[in-house]
Amino acid sequence: MKVAILGYGNLGRGIESAIRQNDDMELVAFFTRRAPETLKTQTAGVPVYSVSDIEKHGDEIDMLFICGGSATDLPKQTPEYAKFCNVIDSFDTHAKIPEHFENVDKAAKENGHIAMISCGWDPGMFSLNRLYANCILPEGNDYTFWGKGVSQGHSDAIRRIDGVKDGKQYTIPVPEALEAVRNGENPTLSTRQKHTRECFVVAEEGADLARIEREIKTMPNYFDEYDTTVHFINEEELKANHSGIPHGGFVFRTGVTGLNKEHKHVIEYSLKLDSNPEFTASVIVAYARAAVRMNKEGQTGCKTVFDVPPAYLSRLDGAELRAHLL
Amino acid sequence: MKVAILGYGNLGRGIESAIRQNDDMELVAFFTRRAPETLKTQTAGVPVYSVSDIEKHGDEIDMLFICGGSATDLPKQTPEYAKFCNVIDSFDTHAKIPEHFENVDKAAKENGHIAMISCGWDPGMFSLNRLYANCILPEGNDYTFWGKGVSQGHSDAIRRIDGVKDGKQYTIPVPEALEAVRNGENPTLSTRQKHTRECFVVAEEGADLARIEREIKTMPNYFDEYDTTVHFINEEELKANHSGIPHGGFVFRTGVTGLNKEHKHVIEYSLKLDSNPEFTASVIVAYARAAVRMNKEGQTGCKTVFDVPPAYLSRLDGAELRAHLL
Repeated sequence: MKVAILGYGNLGRGIESAIRQNDDMELVAFFTRRAPETLKTQTAGVPVYSVSDIEKHGDEIDMLFICGGSATDLPKQTPEYAKFCNVIDSFDTHAKIPEHFENVDKAAKENGHIAMISCGWDPGMFSLNRLYANCILPEGNDYTFWGKGVSQGHSDAIRRIDGVKDGKQYTIPVPEALEAVRNGENPTLSTRQKHTRECFVVAEEGADLARIEREIKTMPNYFDEYDTTVHFINEEELKANHSGIPHGGFVFRTGVTGLNKEHKHVIEYSLKLDSNPEFTASVIVAYARAAVRMNKEGQTGCKTVFDVPPAYLSRLDGAELRAHLL
Repeated sequence: MKVAILGYGNLGRGIESAIRQNDDMELVAFFTRRAPETLKTQTAGVPVYSVSDIEKHGDEIDMLFICGGSATDLPKQTPEYAKFCNVIDSFDTHAKIPEHFENVDKAAKENGHIAMISCGWDPGMFSLNRLYANCILPEGNDYTFWGKGVSQGHSDAIRRIDGVKDGKQYTIPVPEALEAVRNGENPTLSTRQKHTRECFVVAEEGADLARIEREIKTMPNYFDEYDTTVHFINEEELKANHSGIPHGGFVFRTGVTGLNKEHKHVIEYSLKLDSNPEFTASVIVAYARAAVRMNKEGQTGCKTVFDVPPAYLSRLDGAELRAHLL
């Protein structure tokens, strides 16, 4: 399976390293919007091309990993490159998935390719667990918690505040809320009751710390609905203790069965990830395998994790899977 | 979707009640090996037929739920009835799944039906989580824990001991082992280190309790490799506190990513079930929907949870799933 990577940020680098753990895949090209000669990858001997050359190389590629951002990159890139080869992205603007699906589906179908969108862990594995659990327990409640982990969006928001040199924000599930859900209590939880936010901020010399803290805690949409803690630290501390990109979370379904709905059940799925982009990349690489197989069988168009038979993700054949994993 | 139930033990009753939570299914018949008129079901107006009448009614049924035991019933029943209609079973003798698959596949294919085998939570949802997690994290370790829950096989083994009137056995994961796995410590765990066994025993009047306890604790295969606790209680206590059939368990995959395998990840899936048979039934009912759809699309033969695209389990269509669950 010949694969290529477009975009060399955290996700692209995660894909590059995940491919090395899957020896049925060969990385044959990087594509970049920068000047190709400026891109220093970790994989010797694999050419770096300009993004404008994708059309030319489409036929040589079984799967293109599109590692752009959901806000502006993917809505343009995924339908565009689905014309030239099979593609996969991690589009994660939940509200715009239906629109993205339609655009991508059209381009992929017209050109006989598969385009897998919204792959990763949320959307992705979390969505899948919501779906399975909802089908098994039709009468029940869903709960999703995120963290403990770094929110890139919230960290960026902190860094935009006047007087802030750098900062990292952690989203943390409230332990009591997790416990109540896990015990099947079916609590009704406000935004504030589900997660807290913890910020580590490096302020500029002489900045008004009280003002910065106030601006963070009252920031609409990002922080005002949460209990937020702000720690001012120095640059060395930030680098030493907060340079990773951990994340994770929990998906619960609690439901009832029985003629009188007398039996309670709790389904829980959780992730604890040292590296959010590398785990996301690992999910995407597994789905790339599945998508290429589906395309070889004649399927085309836009697909999501909901459409993929689990066996297609594996290098093992059906008999091996049944013997060893069932 | 017209469905029928063969076998009216705990699982059959669970299917009967799960169908009521899925209004796209209509229960049209019960089949039994007993005299049909002796079967008192909970669903008025649904006829009870002899198992020998399945052939006659096969054409009227979209799915037959086969609720027999794995030891002797299912190896005969599933291939036999797959000749007459789509069928689904919960065959759970892991070592014999490949053989069962071959027998069932042949019968189902020759007659244009789908036969879904080994459906439930283990095999079933646990298998599925092992598969997904192995594909995402190719370098890592798998751990499965069962409980806290009632093991029917171990309870039966206790009841076969001389002087035992009744008994229930709980399988319990060792909390320290769970914690070590959850922390990504990748422990090597012996049988004894993973689970303990707790027995509640009603002895016959005047029985030698010390001997019963010794016989339990030293019983080969069932108890000798475990730390086992034995409590002697009276019949009322057993009935009041131990008449349920709870179960559950945990599936973990711990793995590494990164160019230097420097990042650790933990995927955890767990179930906490008030009623083992009702939850198993709920999984089976969801997969019955999927199997009927796959058969309507022209697929035939033996299938497992590995072969089913998750979207097929749901009553919602693709657009609804993408809008609400992705």
